[in-house]
Amino acid sequence: MVDILHRIGVTSSSPEAVYAALTTVDGLAGWWTEETDGDPGVGGVVRFRFDAGGFDMKVMESEPAERVRWEVVDGPEEWIGTRVGFDIKREDDFTIVLFRHEGWREPVEFMYHCSTKWATFLLSLKRMLETGTGEPAPRDVRISNWH
Amino acid sequence: MVDILHRIGVTSSSPEAVYAALTTVDGLAGWWTEETDGDPGVGGVVRFRFDAGGFDMKVMESEPAERVRWEVVDGPEEWIGTRVGFDIKREDDFTIVLFRHEGWREPVEFMYHCSTKWATFLLSLKRMLETGTGEPAPRDVRISNWH
Repeated sequence: MVDILHRIGVTSSSPEAVYAALTTVDGLAGWWTEETDGDPGVGGVVRFRFDAGGFDMKVMESEPAERVRWEVVDGPEEWIGTRVGFDIKREDDFTIVLFRHEGWREPVEFMYHCSTKWATFLLSLKRMLETGTGEPAPRDVRISNWH
Repeated sequence: MVDILHRIGVTSSSPEAVYAALTTVDGLAGWWTEETDGDPGVGGVVRFRFDAGGFDMKVMESEPAERVRWEVVDGPEEWIGTRVGFDIKREDDFTIVLFRHEGWREPVEFMYHCSTKWATFLLSLKRMLETGTGEPAPRDVRISNWH
């Protein structure tokens, strides 16, 4: 079992603001992909679309200012059934986000790519909360031939 | 067992140029940390220093334009004995780098941090090769209270 792990710290923000960016369509569209819709409440499904396809996430858990859990119910074969989690906490003058994308069956090359892309999107989340403007798709950071 | 995985693609470069950036003191100082010295040949030890400490890497393997392997021989306790690897290949118009930092004993919070930092340093490597200027420490991207 291999997981993708990341940690970022957001200044000039709060656990509540980070939580809103993870649990509202407008928030999610501001840092991951502009083409976001669906129901971000527990039990709902949020659809994220990109030029090359997308992901449908079922919201499994959502604890205000503390944590959000998704399960991938549609998307690339390697993603289906995997789980994405965000844990939020306050530390020093930062709101910390611990990110985990777990349940990958094999460390395929696509997983290497997704790990780096998640880092850039989490930095986009940080930037959105700190400056008001993130870098969601289609304005996302290009990291390779796989975009 | 948990590993840190990343994948980047560099344009306007070659496997030989990427390899040079991973196997020369000047190359390494251009994207990871300006305070780099030591012997980057096989069997040698390269010392990387940052404000908060650093890492000593023993070069275990070095195959021109193909791969580099290090073992961490000194640094933070969680890093000692872990292994860092870079695989290089050509794909489309990109030189692809597959990165792996393996052998972590536990997915401690520091590992989450290091995963995201590695992404920013690999993007620094990409930038250095594409534009001539990377973002090595102490000019590295700050991602949190842990820097």
